[in-house]
Amino acid sequence: MTNATDQDRVLIFDTTLRDGEQSPGATMTHDEKLEIAELLDEMGVDIIEAGFPIASEGDFKAVTEIAQRSKNSRICGLARANLADIDRCWEAVKHAGKNRIHTFIGTSPLHRAIPNLTMDEMADKIHETVSHARNLCENVQWSPMDATRTEWDYLCRVIEIAIKAGATTINIPDTVGYTAPVESADLIKRLIETVPGADEVVFATHCHNDLGMATANALAAVAGGARQIECTINGLGERAGNTALEEVVMALKTRNDIMPWHTGVDTTRIMHISRRVATVSGFPVQFNKAIVGKNAFAHESGIHQDGMLKNRENFEIMRPEDIGLSGTSLPLGKHSGRAALRDKLNNLGYEVGDNQLKDIFVRFKELADRKKEVFDDDIIALMHSGGDDEDHLQLVSMKVVCGTGGPAESTVEMEIDGKDVSATENGDGPVDATFRAIRALYPTDAHLQLYQVHAVTEGTDAQATVSVRLEEDGMIATGQSANTDTVVASAKAYINALNRLIVRREKAGPGADAREISYKDLT
Amino acid sequence: MTNATDQDRVLIFDTTLRDGEQSPGATMTHDEKLEIAELLDEMGVDIIEAGFPIASEGDFKAVTEIAQRSKNSRICGLARANLADIDRCWEAVKHAGKNRIHTFIGTSPLHRAIPNLTMDEMADKIHETVSHARNLCENVQWSPMDATRTEWDYLCRVIEIAIKAGATTINIPDTVGYTAPVESADLIKRLIETVPGADEVVFATHCHNDLGMATANALAAVAGGARQIECTINGLGERAGNTALEEVVMALKTRNDIMPWHTGVDTTRIMHISRRVATVSGFPVQFNKAIVGKNAFAHESGIHQDGMLKNRENFEIMRPEDIGLSGTSLPLGKHSGRAALRDKLNNLGYEVGDNQLKDIFVRFKELADRKKEVFDDDIIALMHSGGDDEDHLQLVSMKVVCGTGGPAESTVEMEIDGKDVSATENGDGPVDATFRAIRALYPTDAHLQLYQVHAVTEGTDAQATVSVRLEEDGMIATGQSANTDTVVASAKAYINALNRLIVRREKAGPGADAREISYKDLT
Repeated sequence: MTNATDQDRVLIFDTTLRDGEQSPGATMTHDEKLEIAELLDEMGVDIIEAGFPIASEGDFKAVTEIAQRSKNSRICGLARANLADIDRCWEAVKHAGKNRIHTFIGTSPLHRAIPNLTMDEMADKIHETVSHARNLCENVQWSPMDATRTEWDYLCRVIEIAIKAGATTINIPDTVGYTAPVESADLIKRLIETVPGADEVVFATHCHNDLGMATANALAAVAGGARQIECTINGLGERAGNTALEEVVMALKTRNDIMPWHTGVDTTRIMHISRRVATVSGFPVQFNKAIVGKNAFAHESGIHQDGMLKNRENFEIMRPEDIGLSGTSLPLGKHSGRAALRDKLNNLGYEVGDNQLKDIFVRFKELADRKKEVFDDDIIALMHSGGDDEDHLQLVSMKVVCGTGGPAESTVEMEIDGKDVSATENGDGPVDATFRAIRALYPTDAHLQLYQVHAVTEGTDAQATVSVRLEEDGMIATGQSANTDTVVASAKAYINALNRLIVRREKAGPGADAREISYKDLT
Repeated sequence: MTNATDQDRVLIFDTTLRDGEQSPGATMTHDEKLEIAELLDEMGVDIIEAGFPIASEGDFKAVTEIAQRSKNSRICGLARANLADIDRCWEAVKHAGKNRIHTFIGTSPLHRAIPNLTMDEMADKIHETVSHARNLCENVQWSPMDATRTEWDYLCRVIEIAIKAGATTINIPDTVGYTAPVESADLIKRLIETVPGADEVVFATHCHNDLGMATANALAAVAGGARQIECTINGLGERAGNTALEEVVMALKTRNDIMPWHTGVDTTRIMHISRRVATVSGFPVQFNKAIVGKNAFAHESGIHQDGMLKNRENFEIMRPEDIGLSGTSLPLGKHSGRAALRDKLNNLGYEVGDNQLKDIFVRFKELADRKKEVFDDDIIALMHSGGDDEDHLQLVSMKVVCGTGGPAESTVEMEIDGKDVSATENGDGPVDATFRAIRALYPTDAHLQLYQVHAVTEGTDAQATVSVRLEEDGMIATGQSANTDTVVASAKAYINALNRLIVRREKAGPGADAREISYKDLT
């Protein structure tokens, strides 16, 4: 909190890297997690839940490094209600200038039944674990999971215990996305009125979007007295996801007249981080998504009717500039120089050193030779499509023949650990044939979970970004590549995913980088 | 209303075909509109807003034919506050067994300024137009557009005038998605308490999702006394879209304990219509979309962790079966017979005649020969990928060579109005080269607005559905095609879009099928 006495300040707690990243298929690499954490820190997020340190070696390393690199944000890790989880969490978050341990237990009848604890036994466990966390860290958050389905008296009792044991934030999760706004506001209000010591801690709200009301529920909880909103970028998260950061932040800004609370988030950073999270998670944002969808602002729709533009204020309550969408985003072209590229990169939120600029400029020129206009999205794709010389598998060349005359044929030449090999395979269409050729050169049991093509800009000469998600023994790896040739982009994305899978296998042995423990393992 | 005295019954007013279809890029063809209307009718939607009859010849024809074919739903058309609009609307909806004229005017200061009417002049206009509508049709809905930004006293005054003039439903639109639940409930409640005659009409709520609260706002309005919710499938609509039908209906069903109202919607039809609207509009649904997203139900995520399955009721508040997602959707294979295919089609909500079954079975066999397993989504794609012999442009054959060695080369052979022609072109990637070859054979100025690839099923042998959206002089045409070869699907989708554009040009002369009038033309 910038000012602990400011009762109108709502803390933004982002859990994109924990609850968001745990959604099936949204797994991010270590570097991607560091990048997203840095963006969250820079945009003014108060608390970053960076992961669940005991869940896997990868989670532990990510939380540790995010803690070490943190600037202004408080770095938080998740821990179940046991001493080993809490110790492991502290080992990771202790490196941050500001840190937090977040420990939780499921308190509803359904969740109590699984570890088979009586109400009294669970109460004792809560006292013990929260005390332990507080002895390690002066900032402790405690959550009664499935709070909205927990008996009222018991909920009050365990919250009081957690506060007495030293919790500084009490989070009330609507774990199954079950609540509605009136209920959400009322629950927080009654808890604050009822539980002894409630006025000395911050109450937090953690909503899921199963019934489409996560944003309204979070804001209602603030009206009821909560002063921390847990949320994710793009509403990423399991099932229908979590409260979307961009929605609560922009709603508070736009309707400050009836919701007189404010956050510390620089809203002009929203669009950039939204795009990055969509890309690294492989979860695209739908056109009609609030705030960050392609159509969310009328002027972005591609149709510029005179009448509409004239009456713009009649149909728009937010300005595109507020979320970092520049109204006058002029494309670059093949005559654009290095300075123009650097300016554009800065506008898009990238700071690059001279060497990096040199490398990007070479690829920019290649692209500009092929495309008349190079749009912002092209440049963002360029920034994130660079290969890595240390990759085990590299594409050398490929040739595909396809059409209606018979099966597609693909010849792929690759360098595998320095050795040049090639194979030709047939398949159902150019992508299938190409993937078969790659598998002929590098056999694998990895299962293709997802294959996606996004045209990042308009026109037939658009760059296509292809995402490929592979799964092997519970390990998931996502590869991406952008190219004006969809088939080449597909091959590179597939090889990219394989390289990531190899790194994971090597680092940790078979299966080790899969999340060994889920927060849903209740025993 | 099935029972006009049932105060717990909430009417569902679907505007997918009007407010949804008007969102930039979501234009549907005549046949697609008829199909969606039929699905809405069958699922128990009370009122279908089928279009804006005066907007274009196409809108008029669609509303007319939907009215003629309607079974149980009431068919509604939109009309601005003038006699010509209302007459045209009546000409279209009069064919339905149950019909409605929906007329509106913008009542907020911003909207009053455009036609430059004083408060009194606008009040007179409302009286005149609503009376006229009521003289034509016994069921009239009136909306004060931008109600949430209209002065309270004036809002009460004009609603009273509309009721006295014969309106049977008063709709309160939150045109810019500006409101919040507490405000939404309070507004309806105070209007019903204040406006004379309010107890004799149905109040409706029409919300937009700009701040992510459309669902909560609509449900709050019901708590405040509204008994009609305006919504669209998948929340389709301009900017961030409208209230999503599936969200309000499932929220009322799931939380009937605190929201004791019910609708007439058969929720098991939700998934099918959601997929159809996503396909025909070209607006995909994001994975983490509430209710209908691919990840909305944990078991659909592709990862089946033992612990999670065991504790399924702990983390799911709705059953997939409730929205028509069958848990045991066994794929068909090449040994599946005609009866199995018919069963599957019936399960998916399709009723086919013997001739149609024969045609689909041939294409099913072709697909089954190429794919090991044919999934539900494959079958849905099959159902909607049939060509039309009457098309002006037909693909005869194509061959593409692409890769890293140089520009892609595509040779396309087409039949254009019965004449065989072929061309070879180079391009950036196989799709660009193919589109160039098609344009060489059939030159056009149509601008490619959107190019999208969806893999409809998992695996490299997945069928890809490609959507292509073309724009020419304000006319928009979307083409789609599904094929295991992405490049072939792209060519067919492009040709499909061109065929649709040709039909539009021919039917109406240049530019005529573009929406000539928008409901935003306020003068």
